[in-house]
Amino acid sequence: MDKAPDPQCEQRVRASFDRQRVMAFLGATVERVATGQCDIYLPYSDNLSQQHGFFHGGIVATIADSAAGYAGYSLMPPDASVLAVEYKINFVAPADGELLVARGEVVKRGRNLVVTRCDVAVVKHGAEKLCATLLQTLMTVRGRPDLIPG
Amino acid sequence: MDKAPDPQCEQRVRASFDRQRVMAFLGATVERVATGQCDIYLPYSDNLSQQHGFFHGGIVATIADSAAGYAGYSLMPPDASVLAVEYKINFVAPADGELLVARGEVVKRGRNLVVTRCDVAVVKHGAEKLCATLLQTLMTVRGRPDLIPG
Amino acid sequence: MDKAPDPQCEQRVRASFDRQRVMAFLGATVERVATGQCDIYLPYSDNLSQQHGFFHGGIVATIADSAAGYAGYSLMPPDASVLAVEYKINFVAPADGELLVARGEVVKRGRNLVVTRCDVAVVKHGAEKLCATLLQTLMTVRGRPDLIPG
Amino acid sequence: MDKAPDPQCEQRVRASFDRQRVMAFLGATVERVATGQCDIYLPYSDNLSQQHGFFHGGIVATIADSAAGYAGYSLMPPDASVLAVEYKINFVAPADGELLVARGEVVKRGRNLVVTRCDVAVVKHGAEKLCATLLQTLMTVRGRPDLIPG
Repeated sequence: MDKAPDPQCEQRVRASFDRQRVMAFLGATVERVATGQCDIYLPYSDNLSQQHGFFHGGIVATIADSAAGYAGYSLMPPDASVLAVEYKINFVAPADGELLVARGEVVKRGRNLVVTRCDVAVVKHGAEKLCATLLQTLMTVRGRPDLIPG
Repeated sequence: MDKAPDPQCEQRVRASFDRQRVMAFLGATVERVATGQCDIYLPYSDNLSQQHGFFHGGIVATIADSAAGYAGYSLMPPDASVLAVEYKINFVAPADGELLVARGEVVKRGRNLVVTRCDVAVVKHGAEKLCATLLQTLMTVRGRPDLIPG
Repeated sequence: MDKAPDPQCEQRVRASFDRQRVMAFLGATVERVATGQCDIYLPYSDNLSQQHGFFHGGIVATIADSAAGYAGYSLMPPDASVLAVEYKINFVAPADGELLVARGEVVKRGRNLVVTRCDVAVVKHGAEKLCATLLQTLMTVRGRPDLIPG
Repeated sequence: MDKAPDPQCEQRVRASFDRQRVMAFLGATVERVATGQCDIYLPYSDNLSQQHGFFHGGIVATIADSAAGYAGYSLMPPDASVLAVEYKINFVAPADGELLVARGEVVKRGRNLVVTRCDVAVVKHGAEKLCATLLQTLMTVRGRPDLIPG
């Protein structure tokens, strides 16, 4: 992918992530940020389960959406915030395991719109298996920084 | 829509919902079940917020997915369980308010696949506003009842 | 839906449609334009068929995309053109019949982005049946009118 | 990807493609078939254009849908046919050029459902540029071979 316009993109991504209270509530963490890429991890807990004891699809989608969104945000200018326009997600296997790993990346960076994708793997007894794939559209909202100092 | 094959569909929907532990964790409730329809409500809490203090998009999607999924499940036979194959969601306004209302309904019921949609409104100071719309594909998994008594 | 900002929207929609040469090539026509709505018809021909003799899914999608796109365009200012950002389409029944009827409508009109949907019915021996449903995102491109006189 | 269950998969793909009359009508050809992959090419003609003289989005989607569908079909058993359940497509750049190249591949092959993706490049003056990306769900329809001898 293209270079990010901002050398401090990792710091901006992590600061924004920390302001999303739902991420701490679910137990998700940013594991890696690179130019146009972001990985988010989420360990299993019973609180996140559906009726068969696997990660709920909505939770899988939540971290996929977030990883893809921050992959896009990492390429945006410092004075911009990111808006998720829409996404589609396919669930390809039960999210049965002890950890979710969502790896977001930018497919195409336009001036206003950024298209991203994210694969989500579930790790069970240490082995990874693809459980979902997401395709997302983001909008760059200029002149409205994500960080609003209190 | 077609009639449900099972007169006890509301009871089955509510029992399945209660087994999705993530729903209680988020604070979501089933408000209404009808043949091919399901409404889910979710009051705001700081735990569900993104960086601007609104409901996180992943949470909006989680209850939309669930309302649409149970709308479809309400039409499935008693010995079947429901599998979410995929969905697409458009976020059309910030989810800024005190309550989310997700109204799922069946678009087309096929023998194996069921297509559903869900509109999500956010309620602020008592006024409703559309904030997201979802289009989803479900699969009927026959011979594997949702309820697995312990 | 909102009122169109331009009283001549039907004329603009029809003029733009006429410049899409693929529509005449396929045999599609604009049947109706209203504020935030557009209906497109396409009679069957063997040239449009897939391997079972039905309308090809790509053709169904092409007119659904177009009907939804012009529904959105009907609400845009006269100096703007419309860009299809993305769409999702579900095929819910075989497109087996003598005529396709695509009815596009606006779900939400934002300043830059417009969300639309379109149901496509297939008509066989005079009876209509839903065969596909589409959910689409458009972008308003201001200052670049669709009509570029030769 | 997994091995195809049928050594004659390329022949089956090409025979099915030849029965889709719309492909010849548009001028599309199958350039390559491999296990879980299919490439389709489509040269530009004025008949395929939208109002700015580029390939129409519906045409881009039609060959992406077809390339992804045949990538999936290449892995299906000989007695099965393929059904496109749904897809989502993002248009990431104008399809401005002399040739479209759609490269379909399988993401996940399940027993009944197959998830595929397809990138579409447009070639202009010999240089390739990504113009669209598609994510698709297929269903394997067993016991109904695609080929129905006349």
